[in-house]
Amino acid sequence: MTFTSRTPRVVAARKLQRRRDRDQSGRFLAEGPQAVREALASGVVVELFATADAVERHGELAAHSPVVSTVDEEALAGLAETVQPQGLVAVCEQVDVPLKEALAKRPRLVAVVAEIRDPGNAGTVMRTADAAGAGAVIFAGDAVDPYNGKCVRASAGSLFHVDVVRTGLDVVTALREARLQVLATSGYGADDLDTLADDGVLARPTAWLFGSEAHGLPEDLLDAADRRVRVPIYGGAESLNLAAAAAVCLYASARAQR
Amino acid sequence: MTFTSRTPRVVAARKLQRRRDRDQSGRFLAEGPQAVREALASGVVVELFATADAVERHGELAAHSPVVSTVDEEALAGLAETVQPQGLVAVCEQVDVPLKEALAKRPRLVAVVAEIRDPGNAGTVMRTADAAGAGAVIFAGDAVDPYNGKCVRASAGSLFHVDVVRTGLDVVTALREARLQVLATSGYGADDLDTLADDGVLARPTAWLFGSEAHGLPEDLLDAADRRVRVPIYGGAESLNLAAAAAVCLYASARAQR
Repeated sequence: MTFTSRTPRVVAARKLQRRRDRDQSGRFLAEGPQAVREALASGVVVELFATADAVERHGELAAHSPVVSTVDEEALAGLAETVQPQGLVAVCEQVDVPLKEALAKRPRLVAVVAEIRDPGNAGTVMRTADAAGAGAVIFAGDAVDPYNGKCVRASAGSLFHVDVVRTGLDVVTALREARLQVLATSGYGADDLDTLADDGVLARPTAWLFGSEAHGLPEDLLDAADRRVRVPIYGGAESLNLAAAAAVCLYASARAQR
Repeated sequence: MTFTSRTPRVVAARKLQRRRDRDQSGRFLAEGPQAVREALASGVVVELFATADAVERHGELAAHSPVVSTVDEEALAGLAETVQPQGLVAVCEQVDVPLKEALAKRPRLVAVVAEIRDPGNAGTVMRTADAAGAGAVIFAGDAVDPYNGKCVRASAGSLFHVDVVRTGLDVVTALREARLQVLATSGYGADDLDTLADDGVLARPTAWLFGSEAHGLPEDLLDAADRRVRVPIYGGAESLNLAAAAAVCLYASARAQR
């Protein structure tokens, strides 16, 4: 049997494109073979919607899914948010963990995105933090929903690799209790990233705080952090964008912690 | 006199949103106060279109423009590609320089974007290269037009700070003749960025080659480069996105060249 865009289970799944329905159900959508593969490896796939073509092309993914529902092209297009979802969209259980649980594992590198509203930026920071070896990415305060489709796609699977945490803005005490030094990024920071690297400061277990490009970090977080750190600007640019600044900081830590 | 969206000069300027018209005229559009300020400082503004409100708010910019044309809100909205252009759009002369001219200045750090089609990525690399102190950004082969509106905006003014070059794919010989070592980024590179930093290799004058996220660098460029370099992946991510990889590589060079 092939489901259409009017089949109730398809209609229900499509609603997961909206934050309210994701929040209420504790589920979200992952599309495309890479994300579906990672979701399956994490054991969070509830149901895989796939076109008949995709079931054939990605037989190994279908074989590992608890439920595979064949859908027509129109139903798949309605479930997917990209133009080329390659025939696969999975309904997944949300993967985030409580702050305590993530910090109990004593990660040596953590990224905190505070009140970041842009899903592409947040997803990219997740991907970069994962690449740099971070154990957790913390969405603090009124940040974007990590299960927003654009964020999931920008994370390129890293949503399933790191511990994702959603919490309030008052995270600094918990981070410090987990023996992490807390470094807040700021264009006006008193400490220069290169100097911290030279002085061996970056070798310590570290939580990096990143704010939105438009507003920076909230004052409370800047005040609570151990240091305010600026990425040095060697040329004429006023600043780096968020994804670039996060890459430079997280990789400076990764290199120092080797 | 206030121009409307049907005034011939406004109609002609609006056509600069299309690549063909930019190529033919050698001009492009810069919108918003930051870009207009940088364009004025570079002496490339031909005409500034501004609403009456914006002329008042940004009097110092209007005062420095060779020609200021007041437009109504509708005309401004048609010229702008963003929702909040803050009332200012400037017609500018294109700023790129020949490869020879850029290399004759003996830059110590150069970024080459080869066949990169995404304007946001290309603009972000320009901004990051500028921040890292690069002297030139080279658009090689069938790359995006650096004057694409999205690219101009993502560069956040850096289009006016670095030497922008548009050239064919066969750039490596010219780079080497300018005493630059040529480092090609590749997920499968034999050399690891951290090892090159440890060994002092990154302190030398360097041109970094970046390919598109989807296709990587063309084989010819990978073959012609002095080294193929991979950014180390410490966690579960398969790779970094282009903007993050460029940030890590360019800042590793900047730090080594201090």
